[in-house]
Amino acid sequence: MNRIKPRTLSGFMELLPAQQVLFDTIERSLRDSFSLYGFTPLDTPLMEAAEILLAKGGGETEKQIYSLRKGDTDLALRYELTTSLAKYVALNYGKLTFPFRRFEIGKVYRGERAQRGRFREFYQADIDIIGDGGLDVLNEAEIPSVIYKCFMSLGLERFVININNRKALGGFFEIIGLGDRAADVLRVVDKLDKVGEEKLEEMLADDLNLSKAQIDEILAFVTYQGDPFDILNKYRGKSEMFDRGVEELADVKKYVMGFGVPESHFKINLAIARGLDYYTATVYETLLTDYPEVGSVCSGGRYDNLAEYFIDRQLPGVGISIGLTRLFYVLQEQGLLSDSLLTSAADVLIIPMTDDLSHSVSLAASMREQGLRVQIYGDNKKFNTKLSYANKLGVPYVVLLGEDEINAGHITVKDMKEGSQVTASAALLITGLCDSIKKLRSGTPIK
Amino acid sequence: MNRIKPRTLSGFMELLPAQQVLFDTIERSLRDSFSLYGFTPLDTPLMEAAEILLAKGGGETEKQIYSLRKGDTDLALRYELTTSLAKYVALNYGKLTFPFRRFEIGKVYRGERAQRGRFREFYQADIDIIGDGGLDVLNEAEIPSVIYKCFMSLGLERFVININNRKALGGFFEIIGLGDRAADVLRVVDKLDKVGEEKLEEMLADDLNLSKAQIDEILAFVTYQGDPFDILNKYRGKSEMFDRGVEELADVKKYVMGFGVPESHFKINLAIARGLDYYTATVYETLLTDYPEVGSVCSGGRYDNLAEYFIDRQLPGVGISIGLTRLFYVLQEQGLLSDSLLTSAADVLIIPMTDDLSHSVSLAASMREQGLRVQIYGDNKKFNTKLSYANKLGVPYVVLLGEDEINAGHITVKDMKEGSQVTASAALLITGLCDSIKKLRSGTPIK
Repeated sequence: MNRIKPRTLSGFMELLPAQQVLFDTIERSLRDSFSLYGFTPLDTPLMEAAEILLAKGGGETEKQIYSLRKGDTDLALRYELTTSLAKYVALNYGKLTFPFRRFEIGKVYRGERAQRGRFREFYQADIDIIGDGGLDVLNEAEIPSVIYKCFMSLGLERFVININNRKALGGFFEIIGLGDRAADVLRVVDKLDKVGEEKLEEMLADDLNLSKAQIDEILAFVTYQGDPFDILNKYRGKSEMFDRGVEELADVKKYVMGFGVPESHFKINLAIARGLDYYTATVYETLLTDYPEVGSVCSGGRYDNLAEYFIDRQLPGVGISIGLTRLFYVLQEQGLLSDSLLTSAADVLIIPMTDDLSHSVSLAASMREQGLRVQIYGDNKKFNTKLSYANKLGVPYVVLLGEDEINAGHITVKDMKEGSQVTASAALLITGLCDSIKKLRSGTPIK
Repeated sequence: MNRIKPRTLSGFMELLPAQQVLFDTIERSLRDSFSLYGFTPLDTPLMEAAEILLAKGGGETEKQIYSLRKGDTDLALRYELTTSLAKYVALNYGKLTFPFRRFEIGKVYRGERAQRGRFREFYQADIDIIGDGGLDVLNEAEIPSVIYKCFMSLGLERFVININNRKALGGFFEIIGLGDRAADVLRVVDKLDKVGEEKLEEMLADDLNLSKAQIDEILAFVTYQGDPFDILNKYRGKSEMFDRGVEELADVKKYVMGFGVPESHFKINLAIARGLDYYTATVYETLLTDYPEVGSVCSGGRYDNLAEYFIDRQLPGVGISIGLTRLFYVLQEQGLLSDSLLTSAADVLIIPMTDDLSHSVSLAASMREQGLRVQIYGDNKKFNTKLSYANKLGVPYVVLLGEDEINAGHITVKDMKEGSQVTASAALLITGLCDSIKKLRSGTPIK
C-alpha cells in the first residue's frame, strides 16, 4: 500500500489528549464567566462571501486571508470575529434586542509566515456589547470586571488590566497643540511599552520633529507615576474632548471598583492607545505581571460604529478579545498549566477478572449513573497489560472485579497514586469514589 | 458611504440567540454523555494538506471538498472527522494509549448543491474507539449504550437503535450461493427502508438477475419479524463468517442490555448494512420513531483498519457519528425543541431608578457571586423602554432599585411571567431567585 506521511500543517495547534482537556476546561470556564455577565453565545460561520469579510478593508490583515472559490462565488475564511458580528447584527437588526451582548469563541484563520508561537488557525474569545444609537459608559466599566472574573476563575491571578480613554489622550494632544498630528503621535506613543522611554524620546524628536518641550510634556503625561487624576486634572477646562474623556475615566474607575475588581488588578495607564482609528473612548490591555514581554492577553475598547459598511444605523459598542490559542501556548511554554487537575479520559477503569463481562458491564452502568466517567478494559490480555493501560491512561482509580468479589457482592478499588487497595461493598465504595473524584476535578486549569 | 448588503452564505446555519442557546445546550450535553463513557475530547484542525484529506480517496465526496492554496501548498477543508482522526492517531501513535477513545464535535465542509435542509458547513459529533491490533466485541456493545444515554439526556425519548452485523449478513449471502456477489446484493438490500419490499424484489430480479428462490430467501431473512435469532440459528454451521457474526450479535445483545438499554430502544435489524466497504462487523442506525423519513440520525459501525493509508499498523475501531446540524434542523422543523428551557441571555435584569448606579453595580456583583446571570440596564431611558427591553430579552426576573429600596436595604423583584412583584431584603430575595432560576434552567433542550 502506498502510504502518505501523516502531518499537521505548521501553525495549526493540535493537542495531545491531556492538554486538550485543559484547553477545553479553559474554554468552558470562559463561557461560564461570559454568561454570568449576560452575554449570549453566538456561533457564526467560519466562511463568508469575500465581499463581506473585506467590506471594511482589511489593510495588512487582508493579505493574510485564506480565499477560496466555489462555482462563481468568491469565499474567504474569517480572520477575526468582529466582521462576522457586524454582519450578524446588520442582518438580524430587527430581531435583536439592544444593547445586544454576545460572546463568541471560535476559530479564525490568518495565513501568516510560519513562526514559533504564531498560529494560522487560532481561537478568539470575544465579547461585545452593541448599543443602538447610544451606549452608557457603565458598559465600559463592566468590561474590566468580566476580564477579572475570567482570569481569576481560570486560576491566573497575577495580571493587571490597563485602562485608558482615547478622548482623554486625544484631548491632551489637542491641548498641547498637536491636535492635527494626534494620529502620528499616538502611533509612536503606543510603542512605549516595547521600546522604553529613551527610545521613545528619540522617535518623537527624529521621526516627528517635536520640540523638546512637547516631548517632555508628552513623556511626563504618559509615564506619570502618581494618581493619574492628579495630572489629568491639571489639563481640565482646556478641551471639551479631554474633559469628557476624564469624566468617563472617573466613572469607569468608580464602577470598576463597584463591580469588585480590586485596585491590585487594574490601573489607569495613560500610555495605552490600541491602534489608530477604531477605538474612540475607553481602551483596555491586560498584562501578565510576571510575563510582560508576552504583551496584552486581552485587549479591546469602545468604538463608535460597529457596522457602518453594512447598515445605516449608529451602533456603538465596546468589546474585548482574548487570543485563546496564543494564551494557551504561552501558559504551556511558561509551565503555568495545572498538573494536578484530572485530565485522564476516565475516573475509573474497571478490569474484569472473569470471562463473562456481565458484572463489569452492570457495574459500569451504575457507576455512570452516579456521574463517574468509566471505561471497562474488555480485551482479553494479561493482568499486567491491563494495569499498564490504567497507568498510561492516568486513571486515578482501578476497580478489580473477580469471582470472589462477585460472590461477596464486593468490588476492589485500587488507588493508582497511593498504590493501596480496598475491598468492600460496591455501594459504599462508589460513594467514596464520587467524593474523591469531585476533589480531583475541582481546581483551576492554570496554576 | 458605499454599503454592502449583509448576507450569510446559503447552506450555512446561523442561529438567532435563543436557538443558539438550545444548540449549545445540546452540544454540552453530548460532551458530558461522551465523557461518562471515558471518551477524551479532541479538536483537530479544520484545514489539512490536501494529500492528507484525499489519502483514502473520497469518491463522490471528493468533488464536494473545498480546496484552497497558500503559497505552494494545496490545502483543503475537512469533509468529515474520520480522516483527521486517522491522521492524528498515526501521527501520535507512540503517545496514545490503546484502546484509544476519543470524541470530537466540530465543523466539517461540503460544497453540496444548495438545498433546503442540506448544509455546507455542519457539525458532526463523532466518537470512536481505536484498538491496536485487536478490539474486544464489548466495545461494539457499548456504543448503543452511549447513543441511548446521549438521546435520553437530550430529552429525545422516541428512537430505536437498529443493530446488525456485517459478518452475519455477508455469511448469509455466502450460504445462499451469492458470496461473490455479496457487495452488489448488499447495495440493493441497503435500500429496503427507502423503497419497500415490492420494489426491492423487482430490483433484485431485474438489476441482479437473482432467481425467485434466492429473492424469497433474501427477503424472508432481512424482513424477518420474530426473534432474529430464530432465523439466524437456521443458517448456523454453514459458514464460519456467518457463525462468528451471529455470536457477535448475541454478545452485543447481551451486553447492550447489561449496559441498561431497554428492549424498547434497540432492535436487531438484519436489513441494515451501512455502505459497502468500510464496516466489517457490528453496524448501527438510529431512527426517530415518529419521523422515520428523516433517516438515521446516528450511524456507524465496526471497521478493520482506521489508518492504513498513514501507518503500517492494524488499528481496528468502532465509531458513530451524529450529524448535529442536520439533527438540530430537523428538531426545529418538527417543533421538537423545548420552549420552556431558559434561553434568555440573563436570569435577571437590574433596572436602576437612581442617577448614580453604584448600588446597582454592587448588587449585580453580589448576584453574580451567587451564580446568577445578570445584566444592568445602564442607559438613561424611560422606564417603559427599560421594561420593554426586559420583555424582548425574555429575562424571567427584573430587579428594580430606587431610592426607597436603597434606603431600606431592600430590592424589588418583578416576576415577568406572573407580572407580580415583591419588595424585601436583597439577601432573602437573591436566595429565592437562585432557586427559581435553577428550576428554569433544568429540563432538556428537546421536548
